[in-house]
Amino acid sequence: MKRKVLIIGIGAGNPDYVTIQAVNALNQVDVFFIPDKGAEKEQLSRIRREICERFITAPHYRMVDFETPLREKPSSTYRTSVTDWHDKMEATYAHLLMEELGDDECGAFLVWGDPSLYDSTIRILDRLNAKGNFELDYDVIPGISSIQALTAKHKVVLNRIGESITITTGRKLAEGFPNNSESVIVMLDGEGAFKAIDEDVDIYWGAYIGTEDEILMSGKLRDVVDDIERLRNVARAQKGWIMDTYLLKRSYDEIGE
Amino acid sequence: MKRKVLIIGIGAGNPDYVTIQAVNALNQVDVFFIPDKGAEKEQLSRIRREICERFITAPHYRMVDFETPLREKPSSTYRTSVTDWHDKMEATYAHLLMEELGDDECGAFLVWGDPSLYDSTIRILDRLNAKGNFELDYDVIPGISSIQALTAKHKVVLNRIGESITITTGRKLAEGFPNNSESVIVMLDGEGAFKAIDEDVDIYWGAYIGTEDEILMSGKLRDVVDDIERLRNVARAQKGWIMDTYLLKRSYDEIGE
Ligand SMILES: C[S@@+](CC[C@H](N)C(=O)[O-])C[C@H]1O[C@@H](n2cnc3c(N)ncnc32)[C@H](O)[C@@H]1O
Ligand SMILES: C[S@@+](CC[C@H](N)C(=O)[O-])C[C@H]1O[C@@H](n2cnc3c(N)ncnc32)[C@H](O)[C@@H]1O
Repeated sequence: MKRKVLIIGIGAGNPDYVTIQAVNALNQVDVFFIPDKGAEKEQLSRIRREICERFITAPHYRMVDFETPLREKPSSTYRTSVTDWHDKMEATYAHLLMEELGDDECGAFLVWGDPSLYDSTIRILDRLNAKGNFELDYDVIPGISSIQALTAKHKVVLNRIGESITITTGRKLAEGFPNNSESVIVMLDGEGAFKAIDEDVDIYWGAYIGTEDEILMSGKLRDVVDDIERLRNVARAQKGWIMDTYLLKRSYDEIGE
Repeated sequence: MKRKVLIIGIGAGNPDYVTIQAVNALNQVDVFFIPDKGAEKEQLSRIRREICERFITAPHYRMVDFETPLREKPSSTYRTSVTDWHDKMEATYAHLLMEELGDDECGAFLVWGDPSLYDSTIRILDRLNAKGNFELDYDVIPGISSIQALTAKHKVVLNRIGESITITTGRKLAEGFPNNSESVIVMLDGEGAFKAIDEDVDIYWGAYIGTEDEILMSGKLRDVVDDIERLRNVARAQKGWIMDTYLLKRSYDEIGE
């Protein structure tokens, strides 16, 4: 009994970010599994539904909402709390795939942005497959990540010419600016780790990118740090939640160097 | 006299990687500027034309081929040779936009993969704008990068849980495996820098990803290094050119840690 599942990257905000490949995939799906991550994520859930309504031509699908287990506050280490959480997620997913998906049906998870970037869906299905209680046949469809949405909106290139790029989290950035990188992308930054950075860098910042609430700001970090902090606080207060990403690039003129 | 130009990411291989946003953009274009990078890039040029034919509904566009200046072998430093080359590219682009694009027309560059990743188009238009000989109004449309094509095909997540990711070049990897990163993506690697890596890592490798010639291979680096090297040599000999990308991830079991 082999279950077919698609992990579909839907892009990070604008429904127009979906690819032709994703549209074709959406049209094969019988059951969409829609995570319910609490009130603050209502908007993301709405965008998922909007995408289905807009791009599925012969709707015969159903939606199955599921509650995502709450993640505990990091106890000993960040990673163990994540793996604890993965155990619960795994049980939730196993239940969904056994109880809600018929034998000849195709199920799907719609992943925000790209499925390969700070998202657990691939890992969870991989773990379920490894356990072997039932067999999964799954495919991954790439999607436009928030990084790409950010750089396109700011019309900026990620890398310095010939140089490396680091993608990291707020938690990691708080340990210091990576010394072997000229360009650092920061995601998952609840605390605003950029405030503590004392390097001569340009920042390209964006919140809710691609959505109607999009906010963009850029400049020399030391010139705009307070403005960004203010914008973040206001936005978070108004909407009740925030998702933002930024690129830090060492400041120098690539032309005249 | 403000000229409108679109920098459109078309994805890295499969025409189905184009987004709805890119399709909408394609349909606004009057003039496509198509680079001619020699015989080995004929296939990429063909994919560009294929995308236009497939997704443009009311064709009224024209194609302008242009020769991209040859890049010189790195002399003093890699970066200066790249900036020399940028000067020439800039002159070429200025000529195209002045001579081949009418006042009320919309021009476009179709960028392979995503425009923010190791691509010069944004930088060149930025430089032209800074010079101020004529005004450009340009937008960037993100596209599926080769990194995302690679990870989707291998069904693998880029990051270790909570950890950073490094994106780098073959030239940089040859200086050593970044010690602050658990996951390293390598692009632009003519020489096969992975051969010299002596760390306990898994490799996820792909060539011509998304095209009909796609080759994938993965495993513990030390187990598959020779196979990959053989595949690369055979492919390069047969087609006359190669484009490949790989992900190196430190080997450990994320479940049992
Ligand atoms: C769990 S990660 C998922 C990333 C997603 N898979 C992607 O490809 O963008 C969530 C983080 O992505 C970033 N993010 C996602 N969507 C965003 C958007 N529309 N605007 C700004 N940041 C976004 C934020 O940094 C957020 O903390
Ligand atoms: C100049 S960079 C441009 C990258 C492009 N902007 C992107 O987003 O993928 C060219 C490098 O991208 C990688 N690449 C591009 N397309 C690829 C494909 N279809 N398969 C494998 N590697 C690819 C190779 O590493 C190649 O050397």
